[in-house]
Amino acid sequence: MVSLVAGGMNSVNAVILDRMQSDIPLIPELAGHLIAGGGKRMRPMLTLASAELICYTGTRHHRLAATVEFIHTATLLHDDVVDGSDLRRGKRTANLIWGNPASVLVGDFLFSRSFELMVEDGSLKVLKILSNASAVIAEGEVNQLTAARRVDLGEDRYLDIINAKTAVLFAAACRIAAVVAERPESEEAALDAYGRNLGIAFQLVDDAIDYVSDAGTMGKDAGDDFREGKMTLPIILAYARGSAEDRKFWKDAVEGRRSSDADFAHAVHLVRATRAVDDTLARARHYGQRAIDALGPFASGKAKDAMIGAVEFAVARAY
Amino acid sequence: MVSLVAGGMNSVNAVILDRMQSDIPLIPELAGHLIAGGGKRMRPMLTLASAELICYTGTRHHRLAATVEFIHTATLLHDDVVDGSDLRRGKRTANLIWGNPASVLVGDFLFSRSFELMVEDGSLKVLKILSNASAVIAEGEVNQLTAARRVDLGEDRYLDIINAKTAVLFAAACRIAAVVAERPESEEAALDAYGRNLGIAFQLVDDAIDYVSDAGTMGKDAGDDFREGKMTLPIILAYARGSAEDRKFWKDAVEGRRSSDADFAHAVHLVRATRAVDDTLARARHYGQRAIDALGPFASGKAKDAMIGAVEFAVARAY
Repeated sequence: MVSLVAGGMNSVNAVILDRMQSDIPLIPELAGHLIAGGGKRMRPMLTLASAELICYTGTRHHRLAATVEFIHTATLLHDDVVDGSDLRRGKRTANLIWGNPASVLVGDFLFSRSFELMVEDGSLKVLKILSNASAVIAEGEVNQLTAARRVDLGEDRYLDIINAKTAVLFAAACRIAAVVAERPESEEAALDAYGRNLGIAFQLVDDAIDYVSDAGTMGKDAGDDFREGKMTLPIILAYARGSAEDRKFWKDAVEGRRSSDADFAHAVHLVRATRAVDDTLARARHYGQRAIDALGPFASGKAKDAMIGAVEFAVARAY
Repeated sequence: MVSLVAGGMNSVNAVILDRMQSDIPLIPELAGHLIAGGGKRMRPMLTLASAELICYTGTRHHRLAATVEFIHTATLLHDDVVDGSDLRRGKRTANLIWGNPASVLVGDFLFSRSFELMVEDGSLKVLKILSNASAVIAEGEVNQLTAARRVDLGEDRYLDIINAKTAVLFAAACRIAAVVAERPESEEAALDAYGRNLGIAFQLVDDAIDYVSDAGTMGKDAGDDFREGKMTLPIILAYARGSAEDRKFWKDAVEGRRSSDADFAHAVHLVRATRAVDDTLARARHYGQRAIDALGPFASGKAKDAMIGAVEFAVARAY
């Protein structure tokens, strides 16, 4: 997919760089740290690949792809403040370098700028999709916050949370390509389904990786989620399948009373013994397959191959 | 003005209450604390009064007035996090009760919800005005943050900051009434000028009050700004007019090395001796007069009287 959209991504990156400027030097400095900082730009790539898939020949999607990346970046800035994170993509977080106030306010700036950009595009339908996605993301973030450290979260509520925090923006990134290309509603819905299922698969794999990866794989250390007491599907499954003693361990861990290296080693042992990581990855393959099948209505070709490849790559990351 | 818009404000309040709901209980709980918490709803009242002034008879402005209040509320939530405030309007702040993470995320939700509401209205012109206002506000907040604790701020940059943080949303609140009523550009501009100048006057008086008021007048204690080292016009003028010794005092105060009651008493003495508070209020009257004069093109009547009265009340608050 990277090579499919390389040309378009140059245009998107130009919009991003241009529109994160401000007379207030802290804004491009802080935003640039995150935007230039090794992000994969997955969401704008999805917009571009979707546009390729449906043979859209205009350029409106470049600005909209930048919009989506701004929304995502704003979310990351606020996430790191909320989580008190000090490392993202292997680099020190903005909140660690410039402080929480600056991260909150520059995040607000990027949110606002993203709305300005989409208003400039002028499609009320796109505005509706992206403003709704933003509201769902924000609601999901609050949902996640209130779910924090609750070992009895359950798979359904977990899926609600990752749908809101990841899948909705993936879905919107894909769908808006069909809107600017004025394709029928059925193609909008198909691209939405592709993005949404890919987003869920991607997040599930991300959550599994915490129990299998080494530092450096994704700029976070194995065990980061565990040490933060973050409720993810591996824990939900291991908890549901565990003995009373195991459940006690997970409750203690999620509530912050077990975060040593030995505790993490025990956690890894438990998620493996209960096949919780394997089954998290099996769930990811399920959603990945649904993403691929959602592309059924579209003609074969380079774009479709790339979008299928992106799913396969996302799902295979943990191996 | 309160009685002029009382009927419309019932509709606006209904929209606010309806649209701050969510399946995530923390959202209405936290948002309601601030929204129900004694706010004056000045900005939606300005939208309603402006609509009265130009004899708009529709109802679109109710939802847009709620939008403006959501933007304002989101800004307050983030401001209190940034400033580490523990009191607003005489009540404990949301960040003190629910923590910074919840305040950041519920603020994001209200921002996003405000965009959803304005997209529902469907006017690209209104969207442009409000998305631009949001971006200017966010940029101004970052500007204010980087200006913090700089005793050499200067009146121009201070005016830039209060224009962005207060005046732009006042202006937008008024202007959008002319847009939905499809009035000529000249009336839009006149209402914009009214709101902008009123906003500056209002903020100047707010900043002066810190050196004259008792606790309870506005839910903040006299000296709050001073103790936070907040740069406002009274300090800018007192610093510019002071002796070398006075300047040393102000520099120390702004940089956080003087925040005792005795220090505040000395600060009050200095701003009075240099007429810094009087002249801050004189500046406020200047902008207040410009706001009133901006209403020149509009016909006399109850609405115009109320809008003039609002300016006079804002300017007279400090006496």
